[in-house]
Amino acid sequence: MQIRPATVSFDIAPYLEARRRIINRSLEKALKKRVKPGRLFDAMAYALLAPGKRLRPILCLAAAEVVGRPHSGVMAAACALEMIHTYSLIHDDLPAMDNDAIRRGRPTAHIQFDEATAILAGDALLTLAFEMLADAFRRSKSRPELWLQVIFEVSRAAGAQGMIEGQMQDIAAEGRGLSLERLQKMHCLKTGALIEASVKAGAVLAGADAGQMRQLKIYSKNIGLAFQVTDDILNVEGDPKLMGKAAGTDQCRKKSTYPGLMGLEESKRFAAHLVNNALQSLRFFDTKANPLSGLAEYVIYRKR
Amino acid sequence: MQIRPATVSFDIAPYLEARRRIINRSLEKALKKRVKPGRLFDAMAYALLAPGKRLRPILCLAAAEVVGRPHSGVMAAACALEMIHTYSLIHDDLPAMDNDAIRRGRPTAHIQFDEATAILAGDALLTLAFEMLADAFRRSKSRPELWLQVIFEVSRAAGAQGMIEGQMQDIAAEGRGLSLERLQKMHCLKTGALIEASVKAGAVLAGADAGQMRQLKIYSKNIGLAFQVTDDILNVEGDPKLMGKAAGTDQCRKKSTYPGLMGLEESKRFAAHLVNNALQSLRFFDTKANPLSGLAEYVIYRKR
Repeated sequence: MQIRPATVSFDIAPYLEARRRIINRSLEKALKKRVKPGRLFDAMAYALLAPGKRLRPILCLAAAEVVGRPHSGVMAAACALEMIHTYSLIHDDLPAMDNDAIRRGRPTAHIQFDEATAILAGDALLTLAFEMLADAFRRSKSRPELWLQVIFEVSRAAGAQGMIEGQMQDIAAEGRGLSLERLQKMHCLKTGALIEASVKAGAVLAGADAGQMRQLKIYSKNIGLAFQVTDDILNVEGDPKLMGKAAGTDQCRKKSTYPGLMGLEESKRFAAHLVNNALQSLRFFDTKANPLSGLAEYVIYRKR
Repeated sequence: MQIRPATVSFDIAPYLEARRRIINRSLEKALKKRVKPGRLFDAMAYALLAPGKRLRPILCLAAAEVVGRPHSGVMAAACALEMIHTYSLIHDDLPAMDNDAIRRGRPTAHIQFDEATAILAGDALLTLAFEMLADAFRRSKSRPELWLQVIFEVSRAAGAQGMIEGQMQDIAAEGRGLSLERLQKMHCLKTGALIEASVKAGAVLAGADAGQMRQLKIYSKNIGLAFQVTDDILNVEGDPKLMGKAAGTDQCRKKSTYPGLMGLEESKRFAAHLVNNALQSLRFFDTKANPLSGLAEYVIYRKR
């Protein structure tokens, strides 16, 4: 299958750059508005404002765009999603978990500060995400039920039936071989759930109907998995300088990965197949879907 | 000042016992409904269903009762508050924080399981609390805005301007002397904020008016502080068997405490004074306030 030509005309790089800039500004503003200066603020800002891809907030905004006009509340949701993602990185990097020293090109939070501060900064970012979501409805034009739906979806995706369970399974699997099926299930929880929730949050807040939601669900399921397959590929052949974190770590830890289970070339074909599925689901929409199409391609062609 | 006689006729012990039983059942039900069996569930259940005082959920229910008729949604909020409290205990007990081995009469979560599991179980309980709150409005009779208000208040109280900042200050103060003023500020954040939010959540959901909210705020501010002063007193002269945790730990860690700063007897007088303030604020209500009065007295006469 071919990637549809329409997306070729849309240049994703400047779009991503512009979105990252506005998201970074919003994240900084939100943090300064809601947290007083001090060590806790410093640790939260250190992790949150480090150079990240901002994939989840960008997906949230792009999903709102494809459905309708994103109102100011959508940016609050986008920021909340990045806060949750950042908290999960801080906690995953802790000595008791993955014990990583480098993240987003800098020392991890527990190295830069200390373990207690890192745990609390993670807790605080998770909590702040829900504060943002609960507070946003006052300034947005969407109905309060929609915000409660978003809080519900995001908490499910981030919680014990989503991201956290994925991390539990990931830790438990270290050093033991996983079947492809178990690996996929783990990744759907650990990474996929929050990516799906990001797309869903934007769509819900922009007032998506059932048909639109269905297509966006197919889209997000496919790019969520493609993202993880690509992460595994980058861990094998990526440039640590561009990624801002170490490569080759999966093999050292004897982690099950897609390249390990299906080979490098087959993994790349699989990722391309998933992205193609995602692009197919967007045929439902008009040119407003160009950013989502570009994002789907970015997910596998990225260097970090 | 005398504690008003009306409260004497109300026996708080059976009330607390009955409430604890129904809260424990609801907590267990919520957990089983929302988290699949496995190691993460086990760690969450281990910490959450351990014998606790259930002060925050009981305050939430009693505050709803004093204002009106508590609907089924209030119990969901009460459970969410206990989940947040439990997560904070799990994380505070971690080796990188207070490094405590015994809690609620049992080995702490990181001893019983392992550190990674304890961190994730804490994260999952915090996240589950927001899932409960966002989901509860569907089954309750209150308006969606009220639930968003509760989520906002609870996240503020639990977050970087509340409980988590209090824990940061507590860790930073270890081994250094704090002034009484700084000690009080720290406790208002660490313990007071969530106790206040518990009372507020119940009152908001039951439809409290501005006058009722004002009185309940005075009530909760006073018992929140009285609770902490009593905790410090119990750490000096409490029975570890009844408390389910070690005594004398504050002195070992050179923590600033009320008995340390104002002496044991003066601390007791101060706690009684605070409880009296709380009781005064309840004069605004009729006999429906008996449970809240009894709770205020329980806060300082408890043995654990």
